[in-house]
Amino acid sequence: MSWYMDKGPDSDVILSSRVRLARNLVGHPFPSRLDKEQAAVVSNKVSESFFGETRDHRAEYLDVDLGCLPDEDRMALVEKRLISEDLARFGECRRAIISRDESVSVMVNEEDHIRIQAMSPGFDLNAAYRKAESVALLLESRLPIAYSGKYGFLTACPTNVGTGMRASVMAHLPGLAMAGLLRGAVESLGKMGFAVRGNYGEHSQAAGHLFQISNQITLGLGEDELIADLGRVAGQLLAQERKARKAVYDTDPIGLEDRSGRALALLRSARRMSSAEAMTLISDVRLGLSLQLVEGVTEEALNRAIISIGPASIQKNAGHPMNEFERDVERAKALHTILI
Amino acid sequence: MSWYMDKGPDSDVILSSRVRLARNLVGHPFPSRLDKEQAAVVSNKVSESFFGETRDHRAEYLDVDLGCLPDEDRMALVEKRLISEDLARFGECRRAIISRDESVSVMVNEEDHIRIQAMSPGFDLNAAYRKAESVALLLESRLPIAYSGKYGFLTACPTNVGTGMRASVMAHLPGLAMAGLLRGAVESLGKMGFAVRGNYGEHSQAAGHLFQISNQITLGLGEDELIADLGRVAGQLLAQERKARKAVYDTDPIGLEDRSGRALALLRSARRMSSAEAMTLISDVRLGLSLQLVEGVTEEALNRAIISIGPASIQKNAGHPMNEFERDVERAKALHTILI
Repeated sequence: MSWYMDKGPDSDVILSSRVRLARNLVGHPFPSRLDKEQAAVVSNKVSESFFGETRDHRAEYLDVDLGCLPDEDRMALVEKRLISEDLARFGECRRAIISRDESVSVMVNEEDHIRIQAMSPGFDLNAAYRKAESVALLLESRLPIAYSGKYGFLTACPTNVGTGMRASVMAHLPGLAMAGLLRGAVESLGKMGFAVRGNYGEHSQAAGHLFQISNQITLGLGEDELIADLGRVAGQLLAQERKARKAVYDTDPIGLEDRSGRALALLRSARRMSSAEAMTLISDVRLGLSLQLVEGVTEEALNRAIISIGPASIQKNAGHPMNEFERDVERAKALHTILI
Repeated sequence: MSWYMDKGPDSDVILSSRVRLARNLVGHPFPSRLDKEQAAVVSNKVSESFFGETRDHRAEYLDVDLGCLPDEDRMALVEKRLISEDLARFGECRRAIISRDESVSVMVNEEDHIRIQAMSPGFDLNAAYRKAESVALLLESRLPIAYSGKYGFLTACPTNVGTGMRASVMAHLPGLAMAGLLRGAVESLGKMGFAVRGNYGEHSQAAGHLFQISNQITLGLGEDELIADLGRVAGQLLAQERKARKAVYDTDPIGLEDRSGRALALLRSARRMSSAEAMTLISDVRLGLSLQLVEGVTEEALNRAIISIGPASIQKNAGHPMNEFERDVERAKALHTILI
């Protein structure tokens, strides 16, 4: 079962927690400076080390050569947040080792040779960290990892030097948005050294009021401190969002019930739907669900919907080329199936 | 059972047919010149004649003294098209005799002493005429009606002199509207001497693409000619509308299915709804139904919805004073009940 079908702690606001660890191999230039041949060497080394001679991870992990994957399949992995857009774009000699429950992925030859990311449902950064760490320890035990006693792990970008770690949470913030408090909350997170992005990473819009909050300042801090820092502000944000939802509800309970009930009805009855509209409606239903204003749908189903309706995921599922209109029709069908 | 719960001929486009006959009593000024006392005399005379000494119509008809009726009850009768806005406004010494199936009403002291109107489901002007005529014959046999051998029935407004008749059909024209052909169709009806109005009479908007088409030129024409004339143009309009619907469907079948499916889902799931939105959505569902794009709902139910959701009808049903917001909530509930 996919990780996002589990309901984690505080999942009314925090959909998921994620930890990423960057590692690099000794004796190879960073990926941006690798030629094809060298990149292939790195890619194979990581795969061989990970799976080992006994292929001990085969049952649990998929070894994906991105160079061999069609465009839409790569983009579908991006939509599931299993690989970055950059890794998808420069597929050649890039690799992703992905756990079958989709909670862990190891990107090879992204900005660093190795980027391990682990996701956990709900608000649980420690669980995500433990998963990422266990993969890192395995690779560190089998590969010569670039590490300096003075600086820690060496990375392509100096901002990652040290732990090589980024932690993030995906937060659903419709309450703050409706209460007009979102901009203020985002600005104050920025001042505290946290980055806030839309749900598909760096350059994306915040469709469906989903925001990824991550620590930006990592230099000189240990893993535990980074997780504690992010955990603290995410906890504050969680409290603010819940308070805002309550205030919005108290101001206009019927309005909110109307909004979420209509949204669910549209998701279940449309014959075609853009992903932007779907995300907006899913957000409305999710909000209503957290306030017990809608029935007959679960957070898990909504999570599955969020992760299944990107253009590439829809395209991949259909198995044949489609234009935007056809994707909108397929998306509506997928939503019926998921949210019935 | 109310007349609009029957499905008449060509009801995909023509919801109802209506015939109105104006009659006046000899020896009384027209209503605009009547004082209270005289108006009461006329009002009582008509009622007594209609019901007769044996009260033979009591089981079938209600005798409504509009002066005694609360405002919202009068307006609810307007929304059901049983009385005119003018009659509702000047309730005092006005009367309406209304059949229990709501297909026939006799307005007393509107512009004329007596205005008989009869409605029939679908496209069936003859049926409506027969109903109105039978009431007119009854009253003519019992009351001294102003009639000139040269001019015919005498009426307050000279345009009604002769037959005292107006015939109309209520047409649903979403196809022409979506195909951009509505304005042209309305203009050409005007040139042929027919009036086109929104569904609640003279000054109303065409909510839900419902239009009332009536003959304007009546002088010198007999009843049969009037009905044949209107029947002919309504038949042409019916054919144009069906053709337009087919063209709209052929251009974008999924778009139309999407639109009507969403509309029905919203009507069934909203917690509050304005009457304007409801009329628009009902129109979308009605169009979808005529093209077999939606299931689980009937034309009869939609007709009932149209006639039940006006502000006054909602107000009257609740039985206590409400503001607009409260009416919107009640309207949503009423729609759930009707369209479930």
